[in-house]
Amino acid sequence: MSSFVRNAWYVAAWSREIGRQLTTRTILGENLVFWRREDGTPAVLVDRCPHKLAPLSLGTLVGDDLQCGYHGMTFNGSGQCVRIPGQAAIPPSASARTFALAERYGAVWIWMGDPALADAARIVEVRRHGEPGWALVDGQYLHFDCNYLNITDNLVDPAHTTYVHKGTIGNAAAEDVGVKVEQDDDHVLAYRWVNDSEPVPLVQAMGSFTGPVDRWQYYHLHLPSVSCVDFGSIAAGREHSEEEMDAGLRSFSYNFLTPETETTTHYFWLHLRNYHVDSAEAGAQVARLMTDTFLEDAAILARVQREQERTGVREFVRLAIDNAPARIRRLIARQQAQEAEQAAA
Amino acid sequence: MSSFVRNAWYVAAWSREIGRQLTTRTILGENLVFWRREDGTPAVLVDRCPHKLAPLSLGTLVGDDLQCGYHGMTFNGSGQCVRIPGQAAIPPSASARTFALAERYGAVWIWMGDPALADAARIVEVRRHGEPGWALVDGQYLHFDCNYLNITDNLVDPAHTTYVHKGTIGNAAAEDVGVKVEQDDDHVLAYRWVNDSEPVPLVQAMGSFTGPVDRWQYYHLHLPSVSCVDFGSIAAGREHSEEEMDAGLRSFSYNFLTPETETTTHYFWLHLRNYHVDSAEAGAQVARLMTDTFLEDAAILARVQREQERTGVREFVRLAIDNAPARIRRLIARQQAQEAEQAAA
Amino acid sequence: MSSFVRNAWYVAAWSREIGRQLTTRTILGENLVFWRREDGTPAVLVDRCPHKLAPLSLGTLVGDDLQCGYHGMTFNGSGQCVRIPGQAAIPPSASARTFALAERYGAVWIWMGDPALADAARIVEVRRHGEPGWALVDGQYLHFDCNYLNITDNLVDPAHTTYVHKGTIGNAAAEDVGVKVEQDDDHVLAYRWVNDSEPVPLVQAMGSFTGPVDRWQYYHLHLPSVSCVDFGSIAAGREHSEEEMDAGLRSFSYNFLTPETETTTHYFWLHLRNYHVDSAEAGAQVARLMTDTFLEDAAILARVQREQERTGVREFVRLAIDNAPARIRRLIARQQAQEAEQAAA
Repeated sequence: MSSFVRNAWYVAAWSREIGRQLTTRTILGENLVFWRREDGTPAVLVDRCPHKLAPLSLGTLVGDDLQCGYHGMTFNGSGQCVRIPGQAAIPPSASARTFALAERYGAVWIWMGDPALADAARIVEVRRHGEPGWALVDGQYLHFDCNYLNITDNLVDPAHTTYVHKGTIGNAAAEDVGVKVEQDDDHVLAYRWVNDSEPVPLVQAMGSFTGPVDRWQYYHLHLPSVSCVDFGSIAAGREHSEEEMDAGLRSFSYNFLTPETETTTHYFWLHLRNYHVDSAEAGAQVARLMTDTFLEDAAILARVQREQERTGVREFVRLAIDNAPARIRRLIARQQAQEAEQAAA
Repeated sequence: MSSFVRNAWYVAAWSREIGRQLTTRTILGENLVFWRREDGTPAVLVDRCPHKLAPLSLGTLVGDDLQCGYHGMTFNGSGQCVRIPGQAAIPPSASARTFALAERYGAVWIWMGDPALADAARIVEVRRHGEPGWALVDGQYLHFDCNYLNITDNLVDPAHTTYVHKGTIGNAAAEDVGVKVEQDDDHVLAYRWVNDSEPVPLVQAMGSFTGPVDRWQYYHLHLPSVSCVDFGSIAAGREHSEEEMDAGLRSFSYNFLTPETETTTHYFWLHLRNYHVDSAEAGAQVARLMTDTFLEDAAILARVQREQERTGVREFVRLAIDNAPARIRRLIARQQAQEAEQAAA
Repeated sequence: MSSFVRNAWYVAAWSREIGRQLTTRTILGENLVFWRREDGTPAVLVDRCPHKLAPLSLGTLVGDDLQCGYHGMTFNGSGQCVRIPGQAAIPPSASARTFALAERYGAVWIWMGDPALADAARIVEVRRHGEPGWALVDGQYLHFDCNYLNITDNLVDPAHTTYVHKGTIGNAAAEDVGVKVEQDDDHVLAYRWVNDSEPVPLVQAMGSFTGPVDRWQYYHLHLPSVSCVDFGSIAAGREHSEEEMDAGLRSFSYNFLTPETETTTHYFWLHLRNYHVDSAEAGAQVARLMTDTFLEDAAILARVQREQERTGVREFVRLAIDNAPARIRRLIARQQAQEAEQAAA
């Protein structure tokens, strides 16, 4: 059974990846081919000619259109066949499948579901993106050998950090402070504040705190699979408000998960910070640390995935720390059920 | 469901490949082992000892016979067990399966169907083979990662040439001239004449025409899978007869497709020409050009095959250019139905 | 259908392989992780955390216990969960599966069946092990790409030696001397004596016989899969008693087969001899010769296995030489039926 949600915006590619050459990527199990029209707008088709099923990505761009490399059938970015060499009449069945695209935050987004619902206003908000006083580490990509829900599990679960990330960001200190969980229809939030404590080493190095701090971690998961981790520190005792938090040392780590297949996932990510914003070195350091940390996740999740496939089971015991992950999976299941109903209707 | 026709002669190997060593090849899904008896006649057995299923190709030749490398059971080329070490009585079930062979045109041919029907007179005629005034490029082999019917499609389809072979023999000039298609019980022919036109570059280089030419392409497909492409040029206005065509610049390109499995095919080929017949260089040039051209087919057909396997579909739209390919597939289906009936009777 | 017998002691590892690091091995299809407790006793768990199925072998030893590398759940060697970070109550379902172990003859043995039946007294006796006057080649390991019963076939079948081992120990001389077969409930024996004959080259080199010898081969198979080959020579005419045989030139070759999966097998082996007992060179020579010989078996059995998988058939003809192998397979089938009955009851 599929674990995919179709009516959602997924990052298909970073904008820089799509141009006047043909770019292929598999998303939700569909092989796709991307290019840009001459006016710069992105286009996508299923990477398969409706004639003999030759991959269209073996063909060539002819102006705005894509010509198959086998018999020259040519399609525009709406999927319409505009030419069949040696044949005047174009049968209505001679069309290629396409999907709605939008471009925002330096990424090309794709909507794999009902095109009537593809409203670009539903693309998740990337907070502070493009705002002055915020530095961006952008355009990052990793490939995970596991189902995307194994990753969303981790992204609302601080408990794994102590063990999986002991080589990078792991830290046993906060294990005793409980995590609170909230949810609405398309959003799960796990968070905690650790108050009146020593700044962690990174914060000591990057900030200029002279006394104890209150620090926070907010793990947002926007369904189906956009994660935003908001973390930072302020001087102990200050109000826990957006204004004060922005005035402290603060980061937003965004992870855009796009299922490739049921067992593999594209992991696009970017990072925003309000400290050392002009330091290229600080940016490179963030990129390295985050990459190393995510690769630790990738390594264990690939092994978890293999064992789940081998046994046909996802978990045998549910623990207290599974509260937020379990909520995500329930909301995903609900959304899938809705999509199945709509498809049947 | 199998796409194989069993009652047919297939090229199993070039004659030079079969000798006093053991040679293995998979044909129609059967692993086979070939050798020559001391009198030079070829022999074949299924490559599997009936005892414990050890591949017989791990054994050794003992005179005309093949001795298994596991326990020494020995079989003659008719599949009879002639020795079981340590056991006097040979049970009747102790036999290995064999198939009818014939040798012609420098190749060993195999009949994978009903041995009672294996009449060597049914081997396809290779026109001009061995005749004076004709040069032969012989003994060529390629391996295709696709079902053999995806190749027969191409071999009666001039339309793909412009796109797939744009790096070799492709040429958009003749696209407007329609292809005529004829068929009988075991043969499909697609052909066209382009009259009163400039000689193509190769013909200009190889021939000595001073004015316009009439040129022809005849794509013969002898069921199930022997292709003969007859192409050439004569001075414009001359009679379109065999005699005149032989007096012009003419080639016969023979392709012998032998299914290896449902998804892979042995591609044996040879080429006959009536120009520069004593030039080794011209022969090498033909071999290079044809190889490069066929490898272009192999590349796109491997991708077509993968996509057909992925989707479980062979084509979504039928075009006008699919006339001849569709006839072949219908005749193949008819022949398979006949074989199924005979097998049931 | 499984070919495994579960109520049996199998060699899981040589003792030297199990220590204060984590060692993984698949046995009877189960991924296992081994270690030693601080008191030196070996421990084993199924290599899979009951929480999210992360391999426990990615974790760390904490004293006697194994801590999962994902969320820190910690298990003792009995499989009990002793700690869940961030959660006081340990649910009863939070346990990992374990198996009975025993250590003997320099190996760790595992009982994969009903723990109530795991009596270490049932471990097969390795004759002469540790006795004065006997030299040991120990701790040898090979990996076979075939089902274990294809190996037990060979280990009671002298007939394959002439063909498979013609490069090592093969010898056609004794082919005419019949093999006698005996059996009881959990043991099959094939044996023969070749009397009053020239010593074979190895015996001439290693022994000091001046006249003809009587030589023996006893192929013991202790069910399910421990093989002992007892072979040697005594001066012709002496009594065929244990005492006389020990006084001659004698070897015991022990092969402990542990199914890894249905199609692969761990092959542990050791060798005892009563000649040149103080010669390291003789020991190295035995290790080399036996390894080369077993690799010849591994090569042909891997090919037999592939062909059996391809056809779904194990053998097509039964020969006289299959007497002992067939008895083993019948006894194994009987034991499996008993285990199935017990499991159902």
